[in-house]
Amino acid sequence: MSLLHLREKVLKANLELVHAGLVLSTFGNASGINREEGLVAIKPSGVRYESMRASDIVITDLDGKVMEGSLKPSADLGTHLVLYKQFAHIGGVVHTHSTYATAWAQAGRPIPAFGTTHADYFNGAVPLTDPLTDKEIEGDYVLNTGLAICRRFKDLDPMATPAVLVAGHAPFCWGPTPAEAVHTAIVLEAVARMALYTALLNPECPSVSQALLNRHYFRKHGPNATYGQE
Amino acid sequence: MSLLHLREKVLKANLELVHAGLVLSTFGNASGINREEGLVAIKPSGVRYESMRASDIVITDLDGKVMEGSLKPSADLGTHLVLYKQFAHIGGVVHTHSTYATAWAQAGRPIPAFGTTHADYFNGAVPLTDPLTDKEIEGDYVLNTGLAICRRFKDLDPMATPAVLVAGHAPFCWGPTPAEAVHTAIVLEAVARMALYTALLNPECPSVSQALLNRHYFRKHGPNATYGQE
Amino acid sequence: MSLLHLREKVLKANLELVHAGLVLSTFGNASGINREEGLVAIKPSGVRYESMRASDIVITDLDGKVMEGSLKPSADLGTHLVLYKQFAHIGGVVHTHSTYATAWAQAGRPIPAFGTTHADYFNGAVPLTDPLTDKEIEGDYVLNTGLAICRRFKDLDPMATPAVLVAGHAPFCWGPTPAEAVHTAIVLEAVARMALYTALLNPECPSVSQALLNRHYFRKHGPNATYGQE
Amino acid sequence: MSLLHLREKVLKANLELVHAGLVLSTFGNASGINREEGLVAIKPSGVRYESMRASDIVITDLDGKVMEGSLKPSADLGTHLVLYKQFAHIGGVVHTHSTYATAWAQAGRPIPAFGTTHADYFNGAVPLTDPLTDKEIEGDYVLNTGLAICRRFKDLDPMATPAVLVAGHAPFCWGPTPAEAVHTAIVLEAVARMALYTALLNPECPSVSQALLNRHYFRKHGPNATYGQE
Repeated sequence: MSLLHLREKVLKANLELVHAGLVLSTFGNASGINREEGLVAIKPSGVRYESMRASDIVITDLDGKVMEGSLKPSADLGTHLVLYKQFAHIGGVVHTHSTYATAWAQAGRPIPAFGTTHADYFNGAVPLTDPLTDKEIEGDYVLNTGLAICRRFKDLDPMATPAVLVAGHAPFCWGPTPAEAVHTAIVLEAVARMALYTALLNPECPSVSQALLNRHYFRKHGPNATYGQE
Repeated sequence: MSLLHLREKVLKANLELVHAGLVLSTFGNASGINREEGLVAIKPSGVRYESMRASDIVITDLDGKVMEGSLKPSADLGTHLVLYKQFAHIGGVVHTHSTYATAWAQAGRPIPAFGTTHADYFNGAVPLTDPLTDKEIEGDYVLNTGLAICRRFKDLDPMATPAVLVAGHAPFCWGPTPAEAVHTAIVLEAVARMALYTALLNPECPSVSQALLNRHYFRKHGPNATYGQE
Repeated sequence: MSLLHLREKVLKANLELVHAGLVLSTFGNASGINREEGLVAIKPSGVRYESMRASDIVITDLDGKVMEGSLKPSADLGTHLVLYKQFAHIGGVVHTHSTYATAWAQAGRPIPAFGTTHADYFNGAVPLTDPLTDKEIEGDYVLNTGLAICRRFKDLDPMATPAVLVAGHAPFCWGPTPAEAVHTAIVLEAVARMALYTALLNPECPSVSQALLNRHYFRKHGPNATYGQE
Repeated sequence: MSLLHLREKVLKANLELVHAGLVLSTFGNASGINREEGLVAIKPSGVRYESMRASDIVITDLDGKVMEGSLKPSADLGTHLVLYKQFAHIGGVVHTHSTYATAWAQAGRPIPAFGTTHADYFNGAVPLTDPLTDKEIEGDYVLNTGLAICRRFKDLDPMATPAVLVAGHAPFCWGPTPAEAVHTAIVLEAVARMALYTALLNPECPSVSQALLNRHYFRKHGPNATYGQE
C-alpha cells in the first residue's frame, strides 16, 4: 500500500469517527501502519476535522520520528506506536473519548459480556488497565499508557479482544485496518451504552456463558465463520 | 401476494428498521411469509442496507431451503421459520438489537406493563425466554432460539403479546405483516426506554391493572376497537 | 377567532408536537377552544401527521358532539372537554406520551421543583393524579381521566401549574392558547428529563425554596413580570 | 476591538449555544467585554434566536446602564457583570440550562474530575455554589447569584476552573473570549454527561490523581503546553 493510499485511509478513518459522533472537539485520533516499510500514518495534533486533508496526515517511523508531513503528530502517537510494536497483526488503531465507553473507563470497570451484541465482536469482557502511577504519569505518560495496555493483554489475544479501557481515561480500539478499528470503536460505544442500561436494570447481572461467547464470536471470525456472503 | 411484492415489502421493512435507528451495522433482520405458497422472504446475511435491493431478498421454503435468490439468507433464518410454523397468524417477523429492548434482554428481565403506552400494544409484560443451555447453544443454536421462544409462549397468545426478549440476546417482534412487525419493534423500543426510566425512578413500580391493560388493548384491537377512523 | 383560524392553530400545534419529538406514532393530540361559541377543535383519531390538513381537524361542542368535519375526533376528546369546562381560563390542551414525563407518570411520582428551569414554568411540583379505579376504567374512562385531573387540582391554580401527570399513563398540559400548551409540553419534557438525572444523582434531593420558585415564576408571569421585551 | 465586532462575536456565541443544543427556548445567554472601554455586549432578554441580529445585542457599561441598543438586556446581565468585575482576565461569559450540567447543579453536587476529558479543561472539580438564602433571592437576586459564584472562587483560579454550577439553578462558564466560553460550555455538558454515567456505574468513584489532572491540564494550557500545532 502506497503512503498516499495509507494517508487517505487514515484521513477517512478519522472523519468517520466524527461522522459516527464518537469525538468531541479534537478528542480522538486514528492511525494506520504500513508494516513493510515500518511507517505509521496518524492524525495531526489539534487540527480541526472539517479542514483536514490527506496531506495533513503525518507519517512517522516506529520510533515516532516524523518522516513526512509538516504538522506535529497527534499527542497520543506514543501509545499507538507501542500497540503496533506489541500487537503484530494490527493495522489500525483508534482512540476516542466516546461517551459511554469513557464512562466505564472512568468508573474503573471493565465492560462485561452481557449479551450477543458484545459477543459478536469481543470474546470476553472489554478489559480495563490499571491506573497509571504518579511516576508513570509524570514520566513518559503517553508511552506508559501504551505499556499499561500491553501489560493488561499479557494473557489476552488482542485480535479476539480488539479494545481496551484505559482507567480514568478512555478506550483504545484496533483491528486489521484503520477502517475495522473505527468499526470496532462504533460497536464498542453501542455495547458500552447497552451495558450501562443492563447494569442499571440488574446490578448483579452475570456475563453470558463462554458457550454463547464462542458461538457468536466464531460465527463471525476464524476459519469456520458462516456470517455474511463468503 | 406475488413473490416480487413480498420481496418489496420485506426490503421496505428492513430499510425502515434502519431509518428508525433500531439497527447497528448489519444487526437486525425482517422477513415476511406467503402462507399460500409456504414461502418466506428474508434479508440476506451481512449485506449493507444502503445497497440492498428487492432482488437481494432471499426466498426460502419453511425448511430453510433457498428457492430463489443468489445470496445466503440471514443467519437468523432458522428462528424466523420456527415462529412462522408455531404462530399460525403471523405474516412478518423482525429481529433487532435495539438499545433499550436489548438492555432488558441482557438484564434478564421481562418488560413490565408500566403504563398505557405499553398497554396499547402488549396485553401484559413483554416476556423473557429462559437462557439457552450450553447444549442448545452448541447444537442448532438458531433453531433452539426459536424453540425457546415458543416454550415461553406455551400459555400466551402471540397476537396479544407480539414480542419477546431472548435472554442475553435481544428482541424478536412479529405481526400480521412485515410492516406491522416493524411498527411493533419501534414501539417496543420506545416502551423499553420509558420502562428503564420508570424502573430507575421507582424500583418497586407495580404493573398497571389488568383493567387498564384491557381498556387500552381492546380500544385498538379486536371486534370492539374504537380507535382510528374505521 | 374564526373556526378556520382555530383549526389552523390546532393543526399547527399538533405538527409542532411531532417536530419537537414528543409524539410516537399517533400518540398525542392538541386541541383549542373558541369560548365565545363554545366550540372545540381537536385532532382526528389515528390519522397520520404527515398527511393531516386543517380541514381534518374536528370541531365539536363542549359535550363532544361533532359540529364540523367528517372524521372521528381523538379518542381523548372527553378528557380535553372536562379540562375546558373546569379550567375557565385555558384556551388549549395538549396530551403526549413524551418519554421522560411519561416515565414519571408511570413511576407514580410527581416531578419535584428541583431547579429554576422548572420554576420558570411551574410554581411547584408537577402533580400526579391518583390511579383510576377499575370501576373508573371500565366506565367512561376518558371522562374519568379528566375528572381525576380536576380532583387533583381542587386546591391548585391550573394557570400556575399548567401540567399534570396521569398515573400509569402520561402528561396533559394546557395554556392560554394551543401554541402555549405545546410550549409547556416541550418544557415539561426537558424538565422531566433533568429531574430524572437529578434524582439519580441525589435520591434525597429536596425541592428548591418557595422563595426561589416565586422569584422565577413571577419574573415571567403576572403583573410584575420583567422578562422579555415588554 | 470595535463595538460592532464585539457585537458580532457575541451574536455568534449565542447562536453557537443553540447550534450545540445547549439552550431550550430562550434559556441561555452569552456576553463579551471590551475591557479598554469598560463595555459589555450581551444578548437581549427573551428574544428568539432565529431572528436575532448583531444590532439586537445590547451594549452596557459595567454598572448595567444601557449604552447602545433599543432592547432590554438579558435578565441575567447582573451576574455577568459581577464576573467581569471579579475575574480580571475573562473576556466572555456564557450561561445555559444545558441538561446534564443543570442536573448536577440541581442535585447539589460539584462535578468530580473523573477522567482526562475533564482534566483537559478543568484543573479540579467543577465547583458548586452555596444555595442562595431567601434574603438573597428576595433581594437583588441576579447580583447575589454572581456574588455567590465569587465567594465560591475565593480560593480558586477562575482561569484554571472556567465554570461553576449555581446550586438549584444551572452552570455559568467563562473564558478569554466569548467563543472560548461557549467551547467550555459545550465541553462541560459532555463532561457532565459522562460524569453522570460514571457515578451510576460506580457511586464511590474517586477523582483521578492530581498528577493526572496536572499532566492533562498543562498539556493544553500554560507556557509548557504541547498540544496543537504551535
